[in-house]
Amino acid sequence: MVQNKQVIFTKVPTTFPEDGEHMQVRESTIDLDAHLTSGEIILKNLALSVDPYMRGRMRDPSVKSYSPAFPLNQPMTGSTMSVVVKSNHPKFKEGDLVYGNTGMGIFEEYTRVGGVYLEKAYTVRNEPKENGLPITNYLGVLGMPGMTAYVGLFKIGAPKKGETLYVSAASGAVGQLVGQMGKAFGLHVVGSAGSDEKVEYLKSIGFDGVFNYKTEDIDDKLGELCPNGIDIYFENVGGKMLECVIKRANNFARIVACGMISQYNREHPEPIHNLMQVVAKRLRIEGFIVGDHLDMEQEFREKVTKMLLNKEIQYKESVAHGIENTPKALIDVLRGKNFGKQVVKIADL
Amino acid sequence: MVQNKQVIFTKVPTTFPEDGEHMQVRESTIDLDAHLTSGEIILKNLALSVDPYMRGRMRDPSVKSYSPAFPLNQPMTGSTMSVVVKSNHPKFKEGDLVYGNTGMGIFEEYTRVGGVYLEKAYTVRNEPKENGLPITNYLGVLGMPGMTAYVGLFKIGAPKKGETLYVSAASGAVGQLVGQMGKAFGLHVVGSAGSDEKVEYLKSIGFDGVFNYKTEDIDDKLGELCPNGIDIYFENVGGKMLECVIKRANNFARIVACGMISQYNREHPEPIHNLMQVVAKRLRIEGFIVGDHLDMEQEFREKVTKMLLNKEIQYKESVAHGIENTPKALIDVLRGKNFGKQVVKIADL
Repeated sequence: MVQNKQVIFTKVPTTFPEDGEHMQVRESTIDLDAHLTSGEIILKNLALSVDPYMRGRMRDPSVKSYSPAFPLNQPMTGSTMSVVVKSNHPKFKEGDLVYGNTGMGIFEEYTRVGGVYLEKAYTVRNEPKENGLPITNYLGVLGMPGMTAYVGLFKIGAPKKGETLYVSAASGAVGQLVGQMGKAFGLHVVGSAGSDEKVEYLKSIGFDGVFNYKTEDIDDKLGELCPNGIDIYFENVGGKMLECVIKRANNFARIVACGMISQYNREHPEPIHNLMQVVAKRLRIEGFIVGDHLDMEQEFREKVTKMLLNKEIQYKESVAHGIENTPKALIDVLRGKNFGKQVVKIADL
Repeated sequence: MVQNKQVIFTKVPTTFPEDGEHMQVRESTIDLDAHLTSGEIILKNLALSVDPYMRGRMRDPSVKSYSPAFPLNQPMTGSTMSVVVKSNHPKFKEGDLVYGNTGMGIFEEYTRVGGVYLEKAYTVRNEPKENGLPITNYLGVLGMPGMTAYVGLFKIGAPKKGETLYVSAASGAVGQLVGQMGKAFGLHVVGSAGSDEKVEYLKSIGFDGVFNYKTEDIDDKLGELCPNGIDIYFENVGGKMLECVIKRANNFARIVACGMISQYNREHPEPIHNLMQVVAKRLRIEGFIVGDHLDMEQEFREKVTKMLLNKEIQYKESVAHGIENTPKALIDVLRGKNFGKQVVKIADL
């Protein structure tokens, strides 16, 4: 029997969740030498991903949404990368790297899993053994956040070369990729972030204009950095930022609504006052969730792997070490304290 | 020389325009026996259309929008139906009926016009002589409002049979047509209007459910009348109504933003608080202006003429008599006092 720490969802938060109150890391045990019934495997979890959308799952289960609420007093789930340490399943061999699909990988050190859940939640993904990319990349640039950037920009945003793209939360896991993909496609790319350090980083990876939304006037900076107006807004924020963008939007602009992180932890969301301009400017505001576009997954992974190997995309990660730091890492993401894609490293391969 | 009354735009309103202050009917004269230079014609104007979008043109010209601001101290313009009384233009013959395109027909009793403006603003439309439909229909069900309903529902709304369509301002020029077209297509159609008389009328023309938004609780009624949620919202109102719809919207619902009449005359538009649901529900909110979709004009007019002649569409008009009643007729539309498409009859054929 070995120790098996788990990240447990313990209480529904009303604003920001707190470590210890709404999430707790608890010890349990697992028998790694147990006899596995047919179709079962044991995974050693190597890394997990904490993402803003998870806040939406930390809710009362009576409130319906696109993804199920986390059950209370159970381990939280999300994207994971793991290695098979024992197997009684023909598709999963010892030593295989395994991806726990967005929302389905279990946040614990070891996972014993079989049957329908195994087949649905986990996919063998041995590519990092071949191409040398870090395993954590498969939780970010080559996982859900990367595909969110790809689908949102190219499918929902429908860009035309020469247009202006504005990305809020641009240093986040999705934002930095949207900007770089937009730049590679031929857009004028502007971003905002919450610290001068992030602003400098975004300039260094090729954004044409970047500003600190905490210290600068948003409307003024959008006017200055988007002299031809905004054609595509990759919306990660909501609230006042969205109002400023609607004001600066060109006719037929697309607002790709991927998340509204500034609103997740408010009991009373900020209102939008200028939605009337949607008619006069023929704006399209469209929400999307990457899971509805899985038909684009292979195209996405092939193209973006190539871009990474060719160094056309730079990708910054923020790595927390140890599963016990998972609650704090998620809280940091929700409070905008992380810089780049936040992952938690649990163990070495 | 004969008298030629004109409807003059005299002052930019901040809230509701008033007759006499922001619009004035003034007398001028015109020489109907004048010698016309090549390419000129004289029109006797028979009817004109007053529509909510005109409020948007009554603005300070420094504020840009999709349609030009009305110049001060000039006749207002909009859709008109006229007859050619004198012509020196090969395409326009005496006795021809002529449509003054949306936003371009001049609000006066007689119009002397030639050159580029004539060719751009006016189209011969002799169909009512053949099919017996009232000339005023060509300002409504077969004009801009009818095409707005058609384009908005079928192109932007992308309906699927069996879905639920909700139409606000349903007794208005556009709303009553959207509902009937939706019903004919196979949708569950729900509408709201501002008086019990309008509610009864909408039921009589086939709406599945209708409520009076002034006397009933909007959220409760939407829940009751749209038991399967809302798939398409034909948005004519904005403000609180839009919030209620977002709450009741199904995943992947389309909000066709055609106008936000409740907001046009407010200095401070009502805010929307629940736009965050755009992401979770993957909503699409899309503004459109019928003038961007003129490629659909012929298809629209053929189909809807047939529906009218077959009595598949019933169409209610509110007719004011005399050009001097134009300001009041427009104000009635903006205040929701009219019932059906508001037109002004100027003269008999």
